[in-house]
Amino acid sequence: MKISHKIEQSAKEEKIWWSFEYFPPRTAQGLQNLLDRIERMRALGPEFIDITWNAGGRTSDLTSEMVKTCQGLIGIETCMHLTCTNMPKEKVDIALRDAKKHGCRNVLALRGDPPTGKDEWEAVEGGFMHGIDLVRHIRREYGDYFDIAVAGFPQHQLLPPEERDLEMKYLKEKIDAGVNLIFTQMFYDVQVFIDWVRSVRAAGITVPIVPGIAPIQTWNGFQRATSLAKIAIPQHFLDALEPYKNDDERVRAIGTKLVADMCRRILSENLGIRGLHFYTMNLERGTKMLLEELNLVPRVETIKPLPWRQCLTPNRRQETIRPIFWANRTKSYISRTENWDEYPNGRFGDSRSPAYGELDGYGVWIKQTKVDALKLWGHPTTFQDVATLFARFCTQDLSALPWSDQAPSTETSIISKQLARMNELGFLTINSQPAVNGVRSDDKVFGWGPSNGYVYQKAYLEFFVNPTLLSLLLKHIERDSNITYYVINNRGDLRTNTHSDGPNAVTWGVFPGKEIIQPTIVEAVSFMAWKDEAFELGQQWARLYEHDSPSQKLISELMDTCFLVNVVHNDFHDPEAIFEPFFKAGAEYLAMNPASPPTVNGY
Amino acid sequence: MKISHKIEQSAKEEKIWWSFEYFPPRTAQGLQNLLDRIERMRALGPEFIDITWNAGGRTSDLTSEMVKTCQGLIGIETCMHLTCTNMPKEKVDIALRDAKKHGCRNVLALRGDPPTGKDEWEAVEGGFMHGIDLVRHIRREYGDYFDIAVAGFPQHQLLPPEERDLEMKYLKEKIDAGVNLIFTQMFYDVQVFIDWVRSVRAAGITVPIVPGIAPIQTWNGFQRATSLAKIAIPQHFLDALEPYKNDDERVRAIGTKLVADMCRRILSENLGIRGLHFYTMNLERGTKMLLEELNLVPRVETIKPLPWRQCLTPNRRQETIRPIFWANRTKSYISRTENWDEYPNGRFGDSRSPAYGELDGYGVWIKQTKVDALKLWGHPTTFQDVATLFARFCTQDLSALPWSDQAPSTETSIISKQLARMNELGFLTINSQPAVNGVRSDDKVFGWGPSNGYVYQKAYLEFFVNPTLLSLLLKHIERDSNITYYVINNRGDLRTNTHSDGPNAVTWGVFPGKEIIQPTIVEAVSFMAWKDEAFELGQQWARLYEHDSPSQKLISELMDTCFLVNVVHNDFHDPEAIFEPFFKAGAEYLAMNPASPPTVNGY
Repeated sequence: MKISHKIEQSAKEEKIWWSFEYFPPRTAQGLQNLLDRIERMRALGPEFIDITWNAGGRTSDLTSEMVKTCQGLIGIETCMHLTCTNMPKEKVDIALRDAKKHGCRNVLALRGDPPTGKDEWEAVEGGFMHGIDLVRHIRREYGDYFDIAVAGFPQHQLLPPEERDLEMKYLKEKIDAGVNLIFTQMFYDVQVFIDWVRSVRAAGITVPIVPGIAPIQTWNGFQRATSLAKIAIPQHFLDALEPYKNDDERVRAIGTKLVADMCRRILSENLGIRGLHFYTMNLERGTKMLLEELNLVPRVETIKPLPWRQCLTPNRRQETIRPIFWANRTKSYISRTENWDEYPNGRFGDSRSPAYGELDGYGVWIKQTKVDALKLWGHPTTFQDVATLFARFCTQDLSALPWSDQAPSTETSIISKQLARMNELGFLTINSQPAVNGVRSDDKVFGWGPSNGYVYQKAYLEFFVNPTLLSLLLKHIERDSNITYYVINNRGDLRTNTHSDGPNAVTWGVFPGKEIIQPTIVEAVSFMAWKDEAFELGQQWARLYEHDSPSQKLISELMDTCFLVNVVHNDFHDPEAIFEPFFKAGAEYLAMNPASPPTVNGY
Repeated sequence: MKISHKIEQSAKEEKIWWSFEYFPPRTAQGLQNLLDRIERMRALGPEFIDITWNAGGRTSDLTSEMVKTCQGLIGIETCMHLTCTNMPKEKVDIALRDAKKHGCRNVLALRGDPPTGKDEWEAVEGGFMHGIDLVRHIRREYGDYFDIAVAGFPQHQLLPPEERDLEMKYLKEKIDAGVNLIFTQMFYDVQVFIDWVRSVRAAGITVPIVPGIAPIQTWNGFQRATSLAKIAIPQHFLDALEPYKNDDERVRAIGTKLVADMCRRILSENLGIRGLHFYTMNLERGTKMLLEELNLVPRVETIKPLPWRQCLTPNRRQETIRPIFWANRTKSYISRTENWDEYPNGRFGDSRSPAYGELDGYGVWIKQTKVDALKLWGHPTTFQDVATLFARFCTQDLSALPWSDQAPSTETSIISKQLARMNELGFLTINSQPAVNGVRSDDKVFGWGPSNGYVYQKAYLEFFVNPTLLSLLLKHIERDSNITYYVINNRGDLRTNTHSDGPNAVTWGVFPGKEIIQPTIVEAVSFMAWKDEAFELGQQWARLYEHDSPSQKLISELMDTCFLVNVVHNDFHDPEAIFEPFFKAGAEYLAMNPASPPTVNGY
């Protein structure tokens, strides 16, 4: 979505919004960490993020790559910077075409800094000389597809009148060439900013102005940034901060208050400004503290239009339904369905025709390195060792399993005790959700979707289990007409008690003026596709151990002999009911094998 | 659906089922009455009905017509009789082709009685001689499309052994020609029936046998039917009934017990029989008493797979969603959408492309004759007179309005007081449903759909209102963020506070192993189509009165100046909330016009 639309909407709803800026890091590990951070910081509710363009070539592809990842995998609206430095027209076009392809609709067009090693800016051959040339090019080639932003410099307010007027003339020309909004450079003198905004307006420029806010994170960082960009620092900032310049914590605390005061003034000054653009410097803490100080809490709606994270690439934007199986492996689901022509829109069966990507094609992998994995999971030698790992994961005593990149979600923690018990009884759980009988859509734990709605869930459990325990379980399950299940082994033999081919909606929401939204389902075809991945992740875990070692044999045997089972309790009024057959079957198993807890082929 | 499938299902579920037989009446009024009765008797839960074929030509088209109406408009599975009498092959084919077109999958093939005026049966030129010829023809021309039933005669059990064996041979030949089941002629001697069934089985016939049960309705009717068909009557029937032969009530009461005993014996005799086929003689009472005596109550599921009545013609069977506006005029909706290529299956917007039929094309009409209408609605001369009619309809003191063929449904009666009050305040209600927050799907009043489910409704109101009162109302409505509305006048100017084009689901159900089913919606396009009909019905009411008479001018003026409004309260937890803005606006209006209640242009 275009930022200008978001600004219009916020104005209509009279709400304050904010956005985060990141820059492409220099190392691969840095990139992974940053993407994880961007994903985490999404919970802080930025309306969009933007990614700077790195002059110099090496990292410019990285910017495109990050835009793709943020729009597609992380599902956050992204603005791409684009500079003229070292960019012949062809490279500009590649960047713009890629951005469009991945659904990015916002570009910040800059001339950029001089190339490394040069003092004076000069255009490359076949490149653009000025920012305005880039703006015109984008408009000419892409029409209205992109919102184009340019940079604004409040600092110019301090220039001698003639220079100031000239800069304003340049800015006005750029705007007239088709610019939609202005992001300002960072500043700390709020009065300078306010005066500058007024003179921009006086010059007849009406597009939205978004102030760039740089949280103060450390004394040195603050000094470096302001001197680099020749930013004036008000004396009271220096007075308050300098005495504590060796105490980062203190600087951050004081800085947060100072910058927050500045933000409050901007928002209250009747400038028509409701948005703040944070220069995060790829850090989390300062921005978070600032938002907290400003009492800016994200609206649930901003964070979760659906219970899972949406993908913002153009062909996936309408996607409203997904199988539950990949709940803990969203990126894998997105990769495996990347080439679908059409995404299910409310009815899964209808548009599922395109096949799920092959496992080989996209690469299923355990996220952990071998070293980290062995540290996490040790060297299990009995089934009970494995079950204990699963149980510890449920109680948050273990941070990951091969099937889950991250700790269980808050909602799962509500049933963590029951899950841990299931694992101790021999049901190795890899996915679950508790039953929810209509809580409000702004509920902290379960909420998603527009306000004034109600959301629901059917209880869901997915697990590996050995054949003997499975038979005992099914006997109990068949007695409860509210339970439906699918059982499959690694050869793909499927067994179920459901009578329809259609999907079972396990998460749904009721909202004002809308159809019922049912974004999560359980059904056979996708379960068949998922089981390949589920068993393969187990085998990868096995392969981490030495060939023929007890741990490898144990886990590999487990994957060869166990069944993968999913169970839905269809009466969402009773959150405990789904566990009953498990506890009963587990107790029976123990009674039959009093000396030994569940095993797998003798382990 | 084929009757044989229904029988299989019933066997699996171990449930008793029953069906009703009707014959085409002789007059147009009789036909209308019978169709109304068939529709009413649907509530008694017949698994299907069948319609006899009337030898002699005049009424044979009527059988086809009734099959079409019952399958399509009434939405009840129908079996068509077909006889050889006076039927050249071409007529047989027309009847079969029409039946297939309307989704009928069951034919009872008979030779039939001799044509009127003849004693001996003879084939027409180009016609069939024996029932078996007809069976073979159907199988040859239609493959497995139809279930073919034939008649069985328990009475044959009383024939001399040779004749009896010959009849059994004929029956066996027919079955071998491709018959799926046997309906028996009526009988009252249960032992004769049981013996006959055993000899049928002994002859190697394995298809289901459905006993034909004729309720005893009056002494004369009982005598006539049994003597016509030469049916043996057990002595204890005569002993019990004859003393009361002049007391129809008594005969019916005693007869009900006798026939019920017979049915109980049949069902308990270990014959594998779980179905009873009732010869209703186009009457309601005897069949109903018999079902009650037998404690055979219809399962909710049998009656209501969806909250509205499904149409069983082949292209409409998948229809799972309808706009709420035609809730009281289902047949009109079916007619107006008859030519759609595709029916919405879960998502209304997607397949709505085909236009609603034009009003002229299918004919909107008030069901009542002029005489009946004037008797019902009198000669209103003030707005208050009209409002009183609407209020009386809500409290069931008036049986119909131009917009509703029938009294308000049971569920509406729950809010009848509030509706009556709305009408007194000047909101002329024509459609409504109360809020329902998840009652079980077998709930007597609100239930529909498969068992073990929960059903929901958002409160809905639709009404005519004058512009002044509307402004007051909207002011209050806008204060409740949970209310969405559409306002339209007879020129089609639409006003709404909904932000999305998509439909608002106002009835939905959650069932084991299924997607959420959302069969009733509110949305703009269908509301536009409905408003033509709604205003036209009012104008037709006006035209019942003499030209320029006060009643005509009042009602016509009302239709010209009033708005048609629909309102949904999106929070289904509070059934009263939807009424608040109405009562407030009404009170304000009264305060502004203390002397006069709502008027329309001075009336």
